[in-house]
Amino acid sequence: MAPEANKVLLDIGGVKYDMKIDENGIWTCDSDPQDVGFHYYQLWIGGAAVPDPGTKYFYGAGRWGSGIEIPANDEDFYSLKNVPHGQVIQKIYFSSITQSFRRCFVYTPPDYEKDIKTHYPVLYLQHGSFEDETGWSAQGKANLIIDNLIYEKKAVPMIIVMDNGYAFEVGENGNSRKFVFEDVLIKEIIPMIDSSFRTIADRDHRAMAGLSMGANQTIRITINNLDLFSHIGGFSGTSNYPSSNKIDRSTFMNGAFNDGKTLSEKIKLSIIRFVLP
Amino acid sequence: MAPEANKVLLDIGGVKYDMKIDENGIWTCDSDPQDVGFHYYQLWIGGAAVPDPGTKYFYGAGRWGSGIEIPANDEDFYSLKNVPHGQVIQKIYFSSITQSFRRCFVYTPPDYEKDIKTHYPVLYLQHGSFEDETGWSAQGKANLIIDNLIYEKKAVPMIIVMDNGYAFEVGENGNSRKFVFEDVLIKEIIPMIDSSFRTIADRDHRAMAGLSMGANQTIRITINNLDLFSHIGGFSGTSNYPSSNKIDRSTFMNGAFNDGKTLSEKIKLSIIRFVLP
Repeated sequence: MAPEANKVLLDIGGVKYDMKIDENGIWTCDSDPQDVGFHYYQLWIGGAAVPDPGTKYFYGAGRWGSGIEIPANDEDFYSLKNVPHGQVIQKIYFSSITQSFRRCFVYTPPDYEKDIKTHYPVLYLQHGSFEDETGWSAQGKANLIIDNLIYEKKAVPMIIVMDNGYAFEVGENGNSRKFVFEDVLIKEIIPMIDSSFRTIADRDHRAMAGLSMGANQTIRITINNLDLFSHIGGFSGTSNYPSSNKIDRSTFMNGAFNDGKTLSEKIKLSIIRFVLP
Repeated sequence: MAPEANKVLLDIGGVKYDMKIDENGIWTCDSDPQDVGFHYYQLWIGGAAVPDPGTKYFYGAGRWGSGIEIPANDEDFYSLKNVPHGQVIQKIYFSSITQSFRRCFVYTPPDYEKDIKTHYPVLYLQHGSFEDETGWSAQGKANLIIDNLIYEKKAVPMIIVMDNGYAFEVGENGNSRKFVFEDVLIKEIIPMIDSSFRTIADRDHRAMAGLSMGANQTIRITINNLDLFSHIGGFSGTSNYPSSNKIDRSTFMNGAFNDGKTLSEKIKLSIIRFVLP
């Protein structure tokens, strides 16, 4: 409701739609049909981009904004169902490398609190650009997906760690922005998780996966640290970002891909998926 | 930034302030000084009340909206410090009484995951009207407060359960709205917490406290269930809500307050605080 506005726009899927006002001051419009799944959207009122008031907000595109979910044919796999549910744990920690407080969310499977002798494999799951550590369990519903998969015995019970992929070293002048997520993950997050949760703390039971920027981080970090990871998942990622040149295998990632046989032996499962727009 | 708006208002502390636009389309104004602590606020653009874009949102006043925190002289006790931090756990469960999925947040103290033989007392902590289960750990910072208190040995390590105080029974026609939070807490939440977490599951180690509506619920539920609770905290609550008549002790809460001696013996600690506006 914006009775005094001259113009209100709905901004979704890269298109801004002119909304029309009715006699009660309520603005409505029909957008084009949207693809199934989750979409960010916003409103423009008086030239200001604002979230839709009264809705729930999600972190994406570098800010908290509105989201809408279009029902999908395959929505069953990520639906909230009456199956045993794991927990999503907010963990705050101080990072010496970045000299800042950081936060991760840790999924523990159903019965984690009861089966106190059981240890679990761990998946490190990273978000995309301009998203944060809340994304995978909020709009991504990673916890509901794995709850359902565990219930259907399509996945083994596991711990999932969702941290913030943005990590910058503080320079002497306080404004250095060297990207140090690999260091934070390897030296701080993994040791913290292995000491705080009942993990199986070896490479055979440690996986990493990510979306977009998280896929890029996954491929670089796992290939750099094959002593720590055996399972790799990259979704819509560009492992040579920010370059878009053809990859030179002999030099790419210090030549890690030159010895395919060794790589194949070390990597138990790799899933690299791209969805073209 | 709202270059095309005719009028933008800042709405905080019950006052709407006219904002002024500069040559870049950016609206600013000075509000009156606000009391220290947390305040909800919103903007009015073109007659629409919207959250401040680009800020973090909090659930209050029945919707997700903007919040601002004014530094306080005593902010030290709720600040994020480099002390051991507990975890805040999102727990999803299906409630048979309300026939709905519900959610609570459970604080577990530092080292909960490591000291797996230790059991802890539990505080059930309830939000006020038009707030929800996110409030106490988001804008309320209950987790940081108890982290600091435990570190300073001013509180014993404990579990804190923050659930949603709104719970309605579903009638046969699907639209009954009988308020059943007491039933949900006593029959569903407490048994679930005692079976999922390492609680000390007796009345001597179970407390309940709440703000406003949560204080009302606390007083009613604890006095009705003194076999389950020994510690009671009510902040800015009205135990006879929605009535504002003088309380008749002989009939109030089925006469529970007639036998002061028994009540005194049963209640180990009660804190009832009111802050007058």
